Amino acid sequence: MKEIKLISPRVANVPWQEKPEKLTGAPVWRYSSNPIIGRNPAEGVARIFNSAVMPYGDEFIGVFRGEQTNGIPYIYLGRSKDAIHWEFDKEKIPFTDEAGNPFMPVYAYDPRLVKIDDIYYIIWCQDFYGAAIGMAKTTDFKTFVRIENPFLPFNRNAVLFPRKLNGNFVMMSRPSDSGHTPFGDIFLSESPDMVYWGKHRHVMGKGSEWWQSLKIGGGAAPIETSEGWLLIYHGVSGTCNGYVYSIGGAILDIDNPSIVKYRCENFLLTPEEWYEERGFVPNVTFPCATIHDSETGKMAIYYGAADSYVGLAFTYADELIRYIKEHSVVSAGDTEIGIR
Amino acid sequence: MKEIKLISPRVANVPWQEKPEKLTGAPVWRYSSNPIIGRNPAEGVARIFNSAVMPYGDEFIGVFRGEQTNGIPYIYLGRSKDAIHWEFDKEKIPFTDEAGNPFMPVYAYDPRLVKIDDIYYIIWCQDFYGAAIGMAKTTDFKTFVRIENPFLPFNRNAVLFPRKLNGNFVMMSRPSDSGHTPFGDIFLSESPDMVYWGKHRHVMGKGSEWWQSLKIGGGAAPIETSEGWLLIYHGVSGTCNGYVYSIGGAILDIDNPSIVKYRCENFLLTPEEWYEERGFVPNVTFPCATIHDSETGKMAIYYGAADSYVGLAFTYADELIRYIKEHSVVSAGDTEIGIR
Amino acid sequence: MKEIKLISPRVANVPWQEKPEKLTGAPVWRYSSNPIIGRNPAEGVARIFNSAVMPYGDEFIGVFRGEQTNGIPYIYLGRSKDAIHWEFDKEKIPFTDEAGNPFMPVYAYDPRLVKIDDIYYIIWCQDFYGAAIGMAKTTDFKTFVRIENPFLPFNRNAVLFPRKLNGNFVMMSRPSDSGHTPFGDIFLSESPDMVYWGKHRHVMGKGSEWWQSLKIGGGAAPIETSEGWLLIYHGVSGTCNGYVYSIGGAILDIDNPSIVKYRCENFLLTPEEWYEERGFVPNVTFPCATIHDSETGKMAIYYGAADSYVGLAFTYADELIRYIKEHSVVSAGDTEIGIR
Amino acid sequence: MKEIKLISPRVANVPWQEKPEKLTGAPVWRYSSNPIIGRNPAEGVARIFNSAVMPYGDEFIGVFRGEQTNGIPYIYLGRSKDAIHWEFDKEKIPFTDEAGNPFMPVYAYDPRLVKIDDIYYIIWCQDFYGAAIGMAKTTDFKTFVRIENPFLPFNRNAVLFPRKLNGNFVMMSRPSDSGHTPFGDIFLSESPDMVYWGKHRHVMGKGSEWWQSLKIGGGAAPIETSEGWLLIYHGVSGTCNGYVYSIGGAILDIDNPSIVKYRCENFLLTPEEWYEERGFVPNVTFPCATIHDSETGKMAIYYGAADSYVGLAFTYADELIRYIKEHSVVSAGDTEIGIR
Amino acid sequence: MKEIKLISPRVANVPWQEKPEKLTGAPVWRYSSNPIIGRNPAEGVARIFNSAVMPYGDEFIGVFRGEQTNGIPYIYLGRSKDAIHWEFDKEKIPFTDEAGNPFMPVYAYDPRLVKIDDIYYIIWCQDFYGAAIGMAKTTDFKTFVRIENPFLPFNRNAVLFPRKLNGNFVMMSRPSDSGHTPFGDIFLSESPDMVYWGKHRHVMGKGSEWWQSLKIGGGAAPIETSEGWLLIYHGVSGTCNGYVYSIGGAILDIDNPSIVKYRCENFLLTPEEWYEERGFVPNVTFPCATIHDSETGKMAIYYGAADSYVGLAFTYADELIRYIKEHSVVSAGDTEIGIR
Amino acid sequence: MKEIKLISPRVANVPWQEKPEKLTGAPVWRYSSNPIIGRNPAEGVARIFNSAVMPYGDEFIGVFRGEQTNGIPYIYLGRSKDAIHWEFDKEKIPFTDEAGNPFMPVYAYDPRLVKIDDIYYIIWCQDFYGAAIGMAKTTDFKTFVRIENPFLPFNRNAVLFPRKLNGNFVMMSRPSDSGHTPFGDIFLSESPDMVYWGKHRHVMGKGSEWWQSLKIGGGAAPIETSEGWLLIYHGVSGTCNGYVYSIGGAILDIDNPSIVKYRCENFLLTPEEWYEERGFVPNVTFPCATIHDSETGKMAIYYGAADSYVGLAFTYADELIRYIKEHSVVSAGDTEIGIR
Repeated sequence: MKEIKLISPRVANVPWQEKPEKLTGAPVWRYSSNPIIGRNPAEGVARIFNSAVMPYGDEFIGVFRGEQTNGIPYIYLGRSKDAIHWEFDKEKIPFTDEAGNPFMPVYAYDPRLVKIDDIYYIIWCQDFYGAAIGMAKTTDFKTFVRIENPFLPFNRNAVLFPRKLNGNFVMMSRPSDSGHTPFGDIFLSESPDMVYWGKHRHVMGKGSEWWQSLKIGGGAAPIETSEGWLLIYHGVSGTCNGYVYSIGGAILDIDNPSIVKYRCENFLLTPEEWYEERGFVPNVTFPCATIHDSETGKMAIYYGAADSYVGLAFTYADELIRYIKEHSVVSAGDTEIGIR
Repeated sequence: MKEIKLISPRVANVPWQEKPEKLTGAPVWRYSSNPIIGRNPAEGVARIFNSAVMPYGDEFIGVFRGEQTNGIPYIYLGRSKDAIHWEFDKEKIPFTDEAGNPFMPVYAYDPRLVKIDDIYYIIWCQDFYGAAIGMAKTTDFKTFVRIENPFLPFNRNAVLFPRKLNGNFVMMSRPSDSGHTPFGDIFLSESPDMVYWGKHRHVMGKGSEWWQSLKIGGGAAPIETSEGWLLIYHGVSGTCNGYVYSIGGAILDIDNPSIVKYRCENFLLTPEEWYEERGFVPNVTFPCATIHDSETGKMAIYYGAADSYVGLAFTYADELIRYIKEHSVVSAGDTEIGIR
Repeated sequence: MKEIKLISPRVANVPWQEKPEKLTGAPVWRYSSNPIIGRNPAEGVARIFNSAVMPYGDEFIGVFRGEQTNGIPYIYLGRSKDAIHWEFDKEKIPFTDEAGNPFMPVYAYDPRLVKIDDIYYIIWCQDFYGAAIGMAKTTDFKTFVRIENPFLPFNRNAVLFPRKLNGNFVMMSRPSDSGHTPFGDIFLSESPDMVYWGKHRHVMGKGSEWWQSLKIGGGAAPIETSEGWLLIYHGVSGTCNGYVYSIGGAILDIDNPSIVKYRCENFLLTPEEWYEERGFVPNVTFPCATIHDSETGKMAIYYGAADSYVGLAFTYADELIRYIKEHSVVSAGDTEIGIR
Repeated sequence: MKEIKLISPRVANVPWQEKPEKLTGAPVWRYSSNPIIGRNPAEGVARIFNSAVMPYGDEFIGVFRGEQTNGIPYIYLGRSKDAIHWEFDKEKIPFTDEAGNPFMPVYAYDPRLVKIDDIYYIIWCQDFYGAAIGMAKTTDFKTFVRIENPFLPFNRNAVLFPRKLNGNFVMMSRPSDSGHTPFGDIFLSESPDMVYWGKHRHVMGKGSEWWQSLKIGGGAAPIETSEGWLLIYHGVSGTCNGYVYSIGGAILDIDNPSIVKYRCENFLLTPEEWYEERGFVPNVTFPCATIHDSETGKMAIYYGAADSYVGLAFTYADELIRYIKEHSVVSAGDTEIGIR
Repeated sequence: MKEIKLISPRVANVPWQEKPEKLTGAPVWRYSSNPIIGRNPAEGVARIFNSAVMPYGDEFIGVFRGEQTNGIPYIYLGRSKDAIHWEFDKEKIPFTDEAGNPFMPVYAYDPRLVKIDDIYYIIWCQDFYGAAIGMAKTTDFKTFVRIENPFLPFNRNAVLFPRKLNGNFVMMSRPSDSGHTPFGDIFLSESPDMVYWGKHRHVMGKGSEWWQSLKIGGGAAPIETSEGWLLIYHGVSGTCNGYVYSIGGAILDIDNPSIVKYRCENFLLTPEEWYEERGFVPNVTFPCATIHDSETGKMAIYYGAADSYVGLAFTYADELIRYIKEHSVVSAGDTEIGIR
Repeated sequence: MKEIKLISPRVANVPWQEKPEKLTGAPVWRYSSNPIIGRNPAEGVARIFNSAVMPYGDEFIGVFRGEQTNGIPYIYLGRSKDAIHWEFDKEKIPFTDEAGNPFMPVYAYDPRLVKIDDIYYIIWCQDFYGAAIGMAKTTDFKTFVRIENPFLPFNRNAVLFPRKLNGNFVMMSRPSDSGHTPFGDIFLSESPDMVYWGKHRHVMGKGSEWWQSLKIGGGAAPIETSEGWLLIYHGVSGTCNGYVYSIGGAILDIDNPSIVKYRCENFLLTPEEWYEERGFVPNVTFPCATIHDSETGKMAIYYGAADSYVGLAFTYADELIRYIKEHSVVSAGDTEIGIR
């Protein structure tokens, strides 16, 4: 970890397991005790998956998609000492509006969690007369104040950048349709105040590689590195028996992140294990968060598996970035500034 | 089993296994040796699933969907001493018409078995210039006399109530389309004579809970209880990778069963085990029958798994009903008399 | 009109226009002043089409699909002295239930009108938690008492036979799906009392001829003749630019009308005129009623045009029946008794 | 024009033709010389339709969807002395970016034209990695400076309110999918600066009336009146032979226009004439602009016809508003503030 | 007609009408008495369209798609003195196999007619366990000997080049699917003997221009000119209300016709007249043949209209070719040799 | 192995495992150590499946579908001593054109391998402006010369017969559409020279048995036997959760192989094991090759499993053929010569 650096805090207790001996392909390996969150993880919650975690004090905290036994997803708070074993609150996160009145979305799923200047932002997908992005903020994980929906429907897979760029907040999202959406590109938008959003830019679209030939979407919050923003995202292939969700990687320009500098033509991880291939939605690996240590470059990738489990995978940031650069194929659309 | 009572015969030899220690969610638990019927259960039959059983004398009898090795389903008779290990007839059930001439549907699937006043009725889905309900009766399980098709196509998942109501036979069914039917509500119909059917009423539709948000359909014959008719049915969710079939529960008014008194917002069982998630049609748990003992309240639920196996699950009737009542959410459409 | 006879009353004032000189194909010709009902025929009614008429005393009466300016169809009563120029009631037909309370369907379309013994029955399509058949009866066209819905959803295009057969009422209908239904066969059902329906039989399905290769459906009430029941129905072809509805003809067995004796391989009328090809639904000719005189054999066919107009066409019953017989092609499915 | 007033400038030369004698339904009547713009209106332009006009000095100006002979639409400027006979520029409108460099969208269609505080804004639909809203401003109709795309894809049918509300610009739009979009509701968004947009609110969705039962979308710029904002929009019905586009009307709350005060259950105009029913897309009447005179209340509605022509219709504002109020049906969703 | 020459026989009696004064766009104008073949053109034939004609002796001959009154299409022979007024044989063309036994396809449509070395070839679309190309040859238009089907299903719109190239016969075709085919490119294939076909090459695909953005297909037999092969083809646009078929033009390399030299970005003709916009399939102009005179350069284009009529349009070959060249846009795929 | 003989070389080292004791249904049993090729079998290759092998000298050779980690499939060469453990070349097969220039398809999948007169032919599916058949030949497995594409798109599942018939090469193929193709029949074509193809004949279509009721396609190269050509093919069933691919068997006439003599109504193998039911495309068993020994009748069937693995199954040729004959159901379409 010399030339390539992570520009982020130390996280000495990043969860970790060394690389197995025989590893072909991308330098990403699964935790040997996967899945780290199994079925029926809490009373009234049938499955937890597609969830986001981060360090909090000396421990870890996270926001979790909890599919209730009635099938409707909500967001639950969880805490962990090692980022592997998690305890979940019994109740859904009790959002309020800015006046302090309770607010509960009709449903909420696929949350992300991003800290900017001592404020923690939760971003999820919810109903807004159609699937759209919902948001809330907290400083203490006790009070969660819901803020304006940033975009019109239909949108999913939104995640903030972990710092302002050029004085504005920056959010990645994936415009969608009202159903299972057989298409999808990643866009960026900016805001001076988290209320009004604009300066929308196209980042990148589906790829010619088959594993991401149907659609793509943002995953974990982008990670600042000496090479640019490291993006862990998902790519989808359409087979005669449904969609297959794999994990991909790219590097965005540090100042103009709508410009893709490198984009790995190979998936980093694809459904192969029983907990990825079998479940409520078979064949899904869906990354939502990373925990990463700038000192050692150790990275832990948290991903939903088969819409039923949470899996954990590891990599070294510098190895990963080198692999992405060595296998990079960028299209003209990727490297544009992204406005028309 | 005190306040809540089953109004049905004793079945002292109901198959049974006690509740495991750690059970979250609904008070329904799987038989630890599931599936009770595996692949290739008989010569020429590749898979048995979606089948109905009941006590008969001191033993048990059942009608089984046997998917032949050419892929076409027919109904086979099976017998068992313990309701867990089953012996199947080599030949399909030899239906006749009322004149005694042989009758064999083009195909027949998803049978139910109901006894009313010493006559056993078999109800199934068959081709009638389109998918529709077929029926036959027997008193000795040797002669099976086919009776009039109760409804026009397209219809599936029909099952009789186990006694007349207000002097009429009552049948539940699920109008469909000609394909895989991405919608479906449960209706009731009455008949004075098992030939002419009318007074059709809407019972309930898909639910706002996601596990039953695509369509629903009747499962086991309704069970008479002191709280109303206990209905074990299936609910379907539509994912980007296909349908997921879960098991649900409701209580219908004892005199006007088109009125839903309680409807459990949570599924009672959903595909989680390998034999439910993997098979000819992945992610299916499809209930078709119960064996229940009014003395102890023990209930055994028989369900098809992944269109490939038969699974068995247990519950106590009073616990189940209490759970349904405690988690009941009924819509305006559920509680209407159901005519427009 | 000697050998082939209509078994029905005289209607000396049947509307009429002689055959034009140059007529190829079927012996059916359009009224030269078509359409007989144009756009905006009444306050609040944008279009009248797909409607049924019959003699009433010395004049004529009819039930009309009136598409309101909000786009929702209801049934209106109309009266005429010559069966060509029609006056419509300002208000929708005021149905009541059997207790005399007002009843108004959510919507009602494509009505038919049939007299059996001295009672007039109106049959239409309405919402019953899905498209289904609604019915009412009247003796004086002042009081209209709604009776039980005969069938479960989804069903359309129902029409009664004008007399009982073998002691039962007989109704033709067309099971459907919940949308625009790209399939459809004609069935028969019987009832002893207009409350309970059964003995359902398949009459005929789509034909191998392209004009009726997508679906078919009943049109006018069957006409009793010395050759059997004369059926004027619609057949639909599916093009890359939508459905095309033509008019077809068949003769059903007089005692067992689920048996098709003759079925004309050629359409009798197909959209060719501007009022048939242009309108709310282009390319529709949809027959709903005939007025016919048994003395002369003159027949007037009333048909909806482009879901926007009412058209009128003429034929001689004996010429028409001869044409149907000469061009008859019946399939094995047509001539079966129609139960499986 | 006494109690109900238009709060807008005088336009003494508003095009006009008096109401015909026999007019049923809504008080809107077609210009007797329609279409005012026919086929092949300019070299290289096959069809002009879905276009917006307004007064400009003593004359009139407009932005026109010109479908080139290669089938691709762009925006053309047109001028007229009487608002009926139009002259078109030979070249597409030459947009520039803020630096003065030429900007030409990949395609551009369905433009609207709105004046706010002496600046004219053109809003259209263009490719932004998917169908989205494009915008430009001009003060002299010589220089056209493109401004930020207000929203992410997929969006169509955007139009500005003619003045700021509560200090913010307000825009109506219709989120869509990437194809022919079989759904669609109208939303509002606000902006302090025409760069950042937020405070999105739902205005209204498709209606239970069949003419608007598939989707709706904004049409002309809202007109300020003493009763609230008068909205002329389009509603779509889905038939087995395609979509039918009609013109509807509603009144929005003057201060909180996401609240619908009145919504006319009847269409104001629906395809009935040959130039509306026949053309590139049959059965389309699509309003994009009005010219209206506050002194007399005379209103001229400009609408695209069959994606092939421009039609003109007239009304009196007070009559129209009274008609909307008398036939108003609002749903719970209409009258909500429109945020979830 | 100096520099650009047609390399084909004189046809002094080519049907002709001079160009109208006001003609914008492509130099192609309709015959003022269109359609030249109307509805019900022969006993038992409801519509003739999509048909091919050519000079024969001093007169003209053609093969016609005759849609019978049962809706099924077959091929009929027609003769004409002026190529405008046509007489049709009463019976379908009586094909035989090579042994002289009668052969009649299940259906046959969209015929083309090409003369090579004194033999006339008829090429059509027929059932070959799926839509495929059928062929026959004749020398006297009395005996029609069916030859081997050139390709596997699914294929449509095949037409031969009028002479061998490099010693081989050459055929253009359009691979399809089994339905209404929402895609389609033009390919070439060669054969030494009209029995075995190979050396398949891609010619061109759909275009970025919207009028041909869904699919394309061959029309008239290619015409040899001093600039290359002149190709009159059809291009299809997909609207929310169905497909729109326009006529396009291109020039192929004379020796390697899989290479497109010029391709006109504008349509040459698009549905605008009532007989093109209204009929069995609205909005279709479908070219199948030309008659052209090498001396004067006069060309008559025969095209099917709305699947209901035959239309006639005129052009001068040199004007047309100049227009194609001036408005040519070719893609990389167009100019490739066309093998992968 | 007496009366029924394989007419093919000895292969003394055919891989083999004896029949398990309890085997119901068809006499085909899986290798107990399946899958023989697992995940990530080579650097940069995520999955190998749907591949073909054959004896080569004393060892074995094969062409393998290698799904790269970017998801795009190419063909890799592999070698084995026992036909169970395989070594793969690191690089894709380096095809050249006839001039020796490198040729690499855009993608290539589902290869078959057939030897005719000392030349080895590789046949696969590749892009040819749409999915089509690609071919190459080799004599030494060092130089691979690509030859003309035999057919127009869209086509898949082509395989040659292992000897000429009546002096011509014979190839089986399955015309398709451009997507996941919900239909498909097997056809034969002939060629005198491997350049030009013709005399196309239909062999057989989908069956009435449900396991092959959606489509079928050729698998292994046909095997010459004393009973005719033994065909191991795949049949597909369509469920609400996707396609299920099973293995079927038929016997074609030795001289006229478009005539089906016997066709087994039962599948020979269907997805039941975890490596068949779970993977990139669940529920696929897809046969591509056999190794068979004429002396003992031992046959090894190689099949792709779940688009993720290679499986191996065994049978005795005479037992298999007897089973096919005993359970044979042939339709009229199967036994026709197959031209229309």
